Amino acid sequence: MLGIGKTGWIEKERPACGPLDAILRPIAVAPCTSDVHTVWEGAIGDRNNLILGHEAVGEVVEVGPLVKDFKKGDRVIVPAITPDWNSLEAQGGYSMHSGGMLGGWKFSNIKDGVFSEFFHVNDADGNIALLPDGIDPAAATMLSDMVPTGFHASELARVEYGDEVCVIGIGPVGLMAVAGAVLKGSSRVFAVGSRPNCVQIAKEYGATDIINYKNGPIDSQVLAATNGRGVDKVLIAGGDCDTFIEAIKMLKPGGAIGNVNYLGEGEFIRIPRAEWGVGMGHKMINAGLMPGGRLRMEKLASLLVNKRVDTSKMLTHRFEGFDKIEEALMLMKDKPADLIKPVVTIKW
Amino acid sequence: MLGIGKTGWIEKERPACGPLDAILRPIAVAPCTSDVHTVWEGAIGDRNNLILGHEAVGEVVEVGPLVKDFKKGDRVIVPAITPDWNSLEAQGGYSMHSGGMLGGWKFSNIKDGVFSEFFHVNDADGNIALLPDGIDPAAATMLSDMVPTGFHASELARVEYGDEVCVIGIGPVGLMAVAGAVLKGSSRVFAVGSRPNCVQIAKEYGATDIINYKNGPIDSQVLAATNGRGVDKVLIAGGDCDTFIEAIKMLKPGGAIGNVNYLGEGEFIRIPRAEWGVGMGHKMINAGLMPGGRLRMEKLASLLVNKRVDTSKMLTHRFEGFDKIEEALMLMKDKPADLIKPVVTIKW
Amino acid sequence: MLGIGKTGWIEKERPACGPLDAILRPIAVAPCTSDVHTVWEGAIGDRNNLILGHEAVGEVVEVGPLVKDFKKGDRVIVPAITPDWNSLEAQGGYSMHSGGMLGGWKFSNIKDGVFSEFFHVNDADGNIALLPDGIDPAAATMLSDMVPTGFHASELARVEYGDEVCVIGIGPVGLMAVAGAVLKGSSRVFAVGSRPNCVQIAKEYGATDIINYKNGPIDSQVLAATNGRGVDKVLIAGGDCDTFIEAIKMLKPGGAIGNVNYLGEGEFIRIPRAEWGVGMGHKMINAGLMPGGRLRMEKLASLLVNKRVDTSKMLTHRFEGFDKIEEALMLMKDKPADLIKPVVTIKW
Amino acid sequence: MLGIGKTGWIEKERPACGPLDAILRPIAVAPCTSDVHTVWEGAIGDRNNLILGHEAVGEVVEVGPLVKDFKKGDRVIVPAITPDWNSLEAQGGYSMHSGGMLGGWKFSNIKDGVFSEFFHVNDADGNIALLPDGIDPAAATMLSDMVPTGFHASELARVEYGDEVCVIGIGPVGLMAVAGAVLKGSSRVFAVGSRPNCVQIAKEYGATDIINYKNGPIDSQVLAATNGRGVDKVLIAGGDCDTFIEAIKMLKPGGAIGNVNYLGEGEFIRIPRAEWGVGMGHKMINAGLMPGGRLRMEKLASLLVNKRVDTSKMLTHRFEGFDKIEEALMLMKDKPADLIKPVVTIKW
Repeated sequence: MLGIGKTGWIEKERPACGPLDAILRPIAVAPCTSDVHTVWEGAIGDRNNLILGHEAVGEVVEVGPLVKDFKKGDRVIVPAITPDWNSLEAQGGYSMHSGGMLGGWKFSNIKDGVFSEFFHVNDADGNIALLPDGIDPAAATMLSDMVPTGFHASELARVEYGDEVCVIGIGPVGLMAVAGAVLKGSSRVFAVGSRPNCVQIAKEYGATDIINYKNGPIDSQVLAATNGRGVDKVLIAGGDCDTFIEAIKMLKPGGAIGNVNYLGEGEFIRIPRAEWGVGMGHKMINAGLMPGGRLRMEKLASLLVNKRVDTSKMLTHRFEGFDKIEEALMLMKDKPADLIKPVVTIKW
Repeated sequence: MLGIGKTGWIEKERPACGPLDAILRPIAVAPCTSDVHTVWEGAIGDRNNLILGHEAVGEVVEVGPLVKDFKKGDRVIVPAITPDWNSLEAQGGYSMHSGGMLGGWKFSNIKDGVFSEFFHVNDADGNIALLPDGIDPAAATMLSDMVPTGFHASELARVEYGDEVCVIGIGPVGLMAVAGAVLKGSSRVFAVGSRPNCVQIAKEYGATDIINYKNGPIDSQVLAATNGRGVDKVLIAGGDCDTFIEAIKMLKPGGAIGNVNYLGEGEFIRIPRAEWGVGMGHKMINAGLMPGGRLRMEKLASLLVNKRVDTSKMLTHRFEGFDKIEEALMLMKDKPADLIKPVVTIKW
Repeated sequence: MLGIGKTGWIEKERPACGPLDAILRPIAVAPCTSDVHTVWEGAIGDRNNLILGHEAVGEVVEVGPLVKDFKKGDRVIVPAITPDWNSLEAQGGYSMHSGGMLGGWKFSNIKDGVFSEFFHVNDADGNIALLPDGIDPAAATMLSDMVPTGFHASELARVEYGDEVCVIGIGPVGLMAVAGAVLKGSSRVFAVGSRPNCVQIAKEYGATDIINYKNGPIDSQVLAATNGRGVDKVLIAGGDCDTFIEAIKMLKPGGAIGNVNYLGEGEFIRIPRAEWGVGMGHKMINAGLMPGGRLRMEKLASLLVNKRVDTSKMLTHRFEGFDKIEEALMLMKDKPADLIKPVVTIKW
Repeated sequence: MLGIGKTGWIEKERPACGPLDAILRPIAVAPCTSDVHTVWEGAIGDRNNLILGHEAVGEVVEVGPLVKDFKKGDRVIVPAITPDWNSLEAQGGYSMHSGGMLGGWKFSNIKDGVFSEFFHVNDADGNIALLPDGIDPAAATMLSDMVPTGFHASELARVEYGDEVCVIGIGPVGLMAVAGAVLKGSSRVFAVGSRPNCVQIAKEYGATDIINYKNGPIDSQVLAATNGRGVDKVLIAGGDCDTFIEAIKMLKPGGAIGNVNYLGEGEFIRIPRAEWGVGMGHKMINAGLMPGGRLRMEKLASLLVNKRVDTSKMLTHRFEGFDKIEEALMLMKDKPADLIKPVVTIKW
């Protein structure tokens, strides 16, 4: 990113490695819709000469003297969120907000990202995880952001055995929200989306009912399908600020919303007063950035190893070579009909 | 309540007692702001010849044949919320929504209330609790609604040891939210209000800082007093739909709002997008009607017995005699400066 | 059950139907190991002429006058645990202990069970659930006890995404504990057992590693397989009082045990002091009877409908006809090598 | 500690300060019963020339180059537990077990303690907290261990509004367990102890009933006082492995034990099978080391500042001067009748 709306390659110094840190080379990287937001919508403000990218598997090329568990040559998964673990926020259970709201999000935000020959990871022992043997690095790049973000929706909404759930949005995060809801014990899963390839994959991940917004308001469709009862939980992985209106309307009292969607514009999210029980309906609204760090990466990697989720289904476009990153990013920007997620693998 | 804006005495049949139910005479009753909302603001729609009142201690005069634990002559606490305990909602942990959102709220809503010579309680074994010996019935009327509603705010917001909390609104519910926050381990408690008598009582219940909205936006005042960090939890017991904007602004990431305020008007509650962390700030919004029923009443009565909270401080105006109920209600409507809560005790 | 060690058929009056209750005919029933305990081990003390059985799908033949949601002819799932929903325990979230510890367990314990031409269900609206169209009644009998008991283990132990879990015991409850752990997001699942058919089905339900106690102490095997780290959670669905020693030894600090195994003999469960962190290791021990009632049955039935779990795999022996119940029970007592669970369907 | 059973002064090098660490001088220190266990009972094995002590307020004399929030001259509270915050255990919410069970306990365990002219704190930004203005350093030493340990019992047992609680043991940790239970909303609090000064202070902290084990088995006394119902929660802050037997017997189904007592001897803790509901009674057993680190210290300090708890009541013996530490330690060993807790303040 050269500036808002402009991308290109730039030369920078190899980043310095602090005593707790590591320097990595990318082995596999994936562009994310939020990279697109950053560049073409100026989502996080103007940035000059910022290197993009926050989804990567990499190889360690250098570690600081206080790093205990990793060494040169290790192949590791890198989470999009790399907290400062001794911060007050992390001690309180919200590591993603270490040092301030969203403070755990460093790559391509407050420092250079992973689309680079070398990139820097703060607190290596706390923030990277070994890539398990036999796991495809391309599939593992989905653990950086898509899986933890999508799965976090069910944690925020506290999905339980037998819950009926509606997942709004079935881009890659929404697809992982579907898979994550199934892995939390949900029974019926409504998936809201219209792109045929996403619909197909959503069903493979466990969606039982597809809701197309082109057929009418989605809350009406969900209420009709549930005899007016509504659903137990709503996971928001797409839409905009007004999506919460529909979500509240389709939710039972005692239900919960788990939002993991980045809300890019609008001054206010609006909650409909009457359907929210005039402030007394116990329809909890929970929304948060994905948890990052090493433990989460290890736990999710273990799900891949034990075949609980197959992330490779989302990788519709595979490239090889560092120079293909720009092409992959442009694909993400243009979103052709057959795209879910592009990935680039790199041999050094 | 004869109709919107009109009150008066009416004659009705003594209510019938179902097999699980009880008929009670009031010993002490208290009017509530929501009675005022119901009559003069038409909050729950037009009602004709509805008997008001949902805060009472009473004497059992009749029980149904399936009632096991109560008998004629027992003096009991009556919660404002009397759930159907075998409903799906109650089984799921949300008894106040038994049979539908807010369905546990029956008195002076879907059936006659307690300002009556005889009143009906559904499921006596599940919904009334013995008045402990030595407890003043007038003080115990605060257990019907003020205490469980105020205390529920801290449950919704999950107040923990050492939390800094802001309580918005210090009417009787807000005062009990202050007391409840202290009894959940909060340390610094900001109380937002301006009426001198309420301010005084708020301090006695444990408020450490008083915020007067006349001195500027309350979120700015709280942020200034905390060096910009904000508070861990916000308990809303007053204000309106826009109070949530201030609440979100003064809240830390990882914090939570517990709302127990009845939101009487406005189409939408608005949540400020940026301060909510663009949908990723982990500022949980939880809002709900008080839990009712027998167990809750017994637990709260135990707090009175063991002197953990002194509800009598709120009883600024005491009346005696059934015919004084109207006067007490009018006092609640007119809210003189020295009023916190009126109560009427009745000898039969 | 005629007395300890003796079974046979007896004639009894058709049970009376209280105002909230229902009388059912069985459509499908399954004997349970605890029926075997009851008769041949005297597990709940001596009982004379007690009708056995607590796993059933039935048809409603009569409902009391206060029953609202069911009528004659409805085909329904009957949980083994049928709480009194207005009890203090149920209000506190522990309905299975309504009226006293284990008080929700009524069938073949404090009243006659379901192996009868007619049987009684207390609080029909609160305790039975419609059998969904298209669901095999035989498969649905597993929802009475095997599924809710096995799944509850993961609730007790709070299984989370990516947890490594050890399930001790792979009889039918243990198999459902395996399935339930997978549906809570566990990754690696060790299953402890030796019978070949159970091992086979455990793998189909998602076990990744089989531990055979014949190969050495199970804690040593699990520790060896995890490089000494141990597992995050242990679900106990078999063994005896000393199984907790092994469970604690294989558990990480911060881990948890979820026990759903009935402990039939021994005066004490023993917890090894050193491995429990000298009382400070945060190895939580949680143990409890399954939650029953209508909501749970509806939620689990929804898992069947949406094909999240296939209980029919466990039904190794199917019988038809009321008179085959004794044969099925004897099978459960004798446990032939190819048995997992027998079921009897009945046409009237 | 020179060896088991031997104490004395030794000369050591001033500890080195790593890049994230700090070196402190003690301003106030308190000996703990566990120091006594360490020396005279060999609780953590033999140690030679280990400096004792883990309760301190100190002054920073040096910080490492990566420390951001503290500087020379700062007066700070030092927790007994100083975790490695980037460890997997801390990321999972169990920082006290960072690097292995009980791994957060470093002082006078795996490194020298605070009874020294200079002592070392790992990860200063994560593990020390500023002493608030106006707080007596002697009172603040109780935040190192007594307060967080005692209060943690209520967290482990999840004390809620109106719970009836039994606290077993009313030494300084038990007294803080009483105070902590009151600050979590408990109503009736049984305190088990016999020493008159402790009984007196227990009442001041909120105990409502005193149980003296000399009057018979404590479970029988508690059951008698509650009409056989038992209590909702049991907090264990004294006794031995067999205390759990009494605790289980006095506990309601659905109740919980929170143990913070160090269990010094015995091979097994024993849980009575029948009273534990034959493994199905939902009597949760939770036991754990106190949470340490900076956030916890800040939160507890805020309770002192806002006068929610007055730790100075426990300080029965005050000394001044570094050379009085041995006298204070011997007092802790000999436990005279009027002792609760000694403290030593030091001027440099």
